[in-house]
Amino acid sequence: MFIQRLAILGVGLIGGSLARALKRAQVCAEVIGCGRQLDNLQEALRLGVIDHYTTDIAEAVRDADVVVVAVPLGQMASVFSSIRPALAPHAIITDVGSAKASVVEEAYQHLGEHLGRFVPAHPIAGTEKSGVAASFASLFENRRVILTPLAETDPQATALVTQLWQHTGAEVVNMSVEHHDEVLAATSHLPHVLAYSLVDTLAQMEDRREIFRFAAGGFRDFTRIASSDPKMWHDICLANRSAILHVLAQFNADLAELADAIEHGDSAHILSIFSRAKMARDKFSG
Amino acid sequence: MFIQRLAILGVGLIGGSLARALKRAQVCAEVIGCGRQLDNLQEALRLGVIDHYTTDIAEAVRDADVVVVAVPLGQMASVFSSIRPALAPHAIITDVGSAKASVVEEAYQHLGEHLGRFVPAHPIAGTEKSGVAASFASLFENRRVILTPLAETDPQATALVTQLWQHTGAEVVNMSVEHHDEVLAATSHLPHVLAYSLVDTLAQMEDRREIFRFAAGGFRDFTRIASSDPKMWHDICLANRSAILHVLAQFNADLAELADAIEHGDSAHILSIFSRAKMARDKFSG
Ligand SMILES: NC(=O)c1ccc[n+]([C@@H]2O[C@H](COP(=O)([O-])OP(=O)(O)OC[C@H]3O[C@@H](n4cnc5c(N)ncnc54)[C@H](OP(=O)(O)O)[C@@H]3O)[C@@H](O)[C@H]2O)c1
Ligand SMILES: NC(=O)c1ccc[n+]([C@@H]2O[C@H](COP(=O)([O-])OP(=O)(O)OC[C@H]3O[C@@H](n4cnc5c(N)ncnc54)[C@H](OP(=O)(O)O)[C@@H]3O)[C@@H](O)[C@H]2O)c1
Repeated sequence: MFIQRLAILGVGLIGGSLARALKRAQVCAEVIGCGRQLDNLQEALRLGVIDHYTTDIAEAVRDADVVVVAVPLGQMASVFSSIRPALAPHAIITDVGSAKASVVEEAYQHLGEHLGRFVPAHPIAGTEKSGVAASFASLFENRRVILTPLAETDPQATALVTQLWQHTGAEVVNMSVEHHDEVLAATSHLPHVLAYSLVDTLAQMEDRREIFRFAAGGFRDFTRIASSDPKMWHDICLANRSAILHVLAQFNADLAELADAIEHGDSAHILSIFSRAKMARDKFSG
Repeated sequence: MFIQRLAILGVGLIGGSLARALKRAQVCAEVIGCGRQLDNLQEALRLGVIDHYTTDIAEAVRDADVVVVAVPLGQMASVFSSIRPALAPHAIITDVGSAKASVVEEAYQHLGEHLGRFVPAHPIAGTEKSGVAASFASLFENRRVILTPLAETDPQATALVTQLWQHTGAEVVNMSVEHHDEVLAATSHLPHVLAYSLVDTLAQMEDRREIFRFAAGGFRDFTRIASSDPKMWHDICLANRSAILHVLAQFNADLAELADAIEHGDSAHILSIFSRAKMARDKFSG
């Protein structure tokens, strides 16, 4: 695989890390970055993440062979409609959005004749930081990238996007859009919702200063994800609303059962829940 | 401060780490360990954590100047009643239990004439591992230890236990029993309940294999505490039941409000909750 011209729309944590990884793998002749704010793009250039930049999205995609849309979920629709008239007929388009049904729906609405070369993707990797300054080339190494190709997607486009991600050191797997959104609601979106909500509960308590003063290591790990970008997680909650609310309802039912067992001192029940969870967690973390 | 004979009842993660830290600080002439299983005590001896051991709890505390009760919460009452007849009149007794009202109630019931030299304590430090093999001397460095002395507690006993913990590198603070239990319910006990419950919800899902396969770093951190000892957390949930149920009810109300905002697409509300939480979390983690 060799890409003559790669356009990264949104040179933040994910777009920047992908650009770095592909440069390191030497699979692109030229990487052009696009964003709205000049300072972030200038920093990206200075850091060697991109070769050129423009704030003109049509200019960014003109003559690009591959276009990676790495903007927040709330910006996908507007970016799709802006690039449509400027895309080369052979250009392959892919995205990195954390929820897929909403992005796919917007692609159907706005990508028109380019839809067959659109490959929806989501790298299961990230940190709680944002912006190009937080990006690094090894972010995707040994992580998984989920592709959710559509019935319309050209298999050659899917093959190229697969190779592209493999060059970052990631393992690529395919999944349906719906299944992706369910799995991610359970393993990523719900945990973020719970972490934000717990920290917010504590932050509203009268003795919050003492509360946080006496919080220890377990709390720090448990709430690390509540340091993530609020706007990004707002976008994800709205984009994957129904899957999140569905798994949240299951969680609420299970939590109510546990609370009931605690209230009634039902030792066997509490122990069986905690033991089952520990077993699953230990198995997961290898 | 110099302790001639220190007895550690329960040479596990906490008891073992305390013994190691006090040996390193060279403040004890002799450390005797006590437990029920020989293999753990033999390992403690082999690791140099203790100087002698016995499985006879009366023998362990006889002639001890300081007795540290580091057994699970569910064992405190039986240990208190077993040591009472064997304690020296000058012996200072302290514990390390993660909840304090229940331990204090049991001390009132079982320590009798020794109550005035009992100093309830809780080191805010730990890992998700158990047993003497997981213990290490630096566990308490720069961590906090909360003492909850009673109206009856001899100030000299409190002073000695304060010094003892300071020798491990910890910062010692005093608090009322009730306040301790509320603060810990919020910062430690509720997070553990949520982590266990979430992992259990996921472990019961039909596609649990895939679920855990696609869980990434954030999930690993968030659920690390669900790897903790189920029996210990069962004991804590029962020992601090009312404070835990109280803060859980507050959390449930806040979570329901957030779910409602997600369901109705109330952007401003979602953003304000996430932003407030991120601010509190960032401030907490320094
Ligand atoms: N962070 C994670 O953990 C993670 C993991 C997997 C997937 N994702 C997904 O990756 C995408 C980006 O997230 P990120 O964490 O990389 O965020 P980020 O660091 O904030 O980067 C987003 C970038 O997009 C640019 N941008 C925003 N609106 C734009 C527009 N209309 N046109 C052009 N550029 C625009 C921003 O720059 P300007 O403000 O200068 O325009 C910024 O550089 C999101 O869809 C997210 O769901 C994130
Ligand atoms: N782990 C934490 O994160 C943490 C943090 C702060 C406070 N604490 C508190 O510290 C205490 C101990 O927890 P831990 O984590 O150190 O647990 P641990 O590693 O399992 O150690 C407990 C020890 O107590 C012994 N034991 C149990 N019942 C006994 C009895 N009746 N008589 C004598 N020894 C007995 C056990 O050995 P045998 O089975 O051989 O008897 C074991 O070595 C608990 O009260 C807990 O609430 C724990």
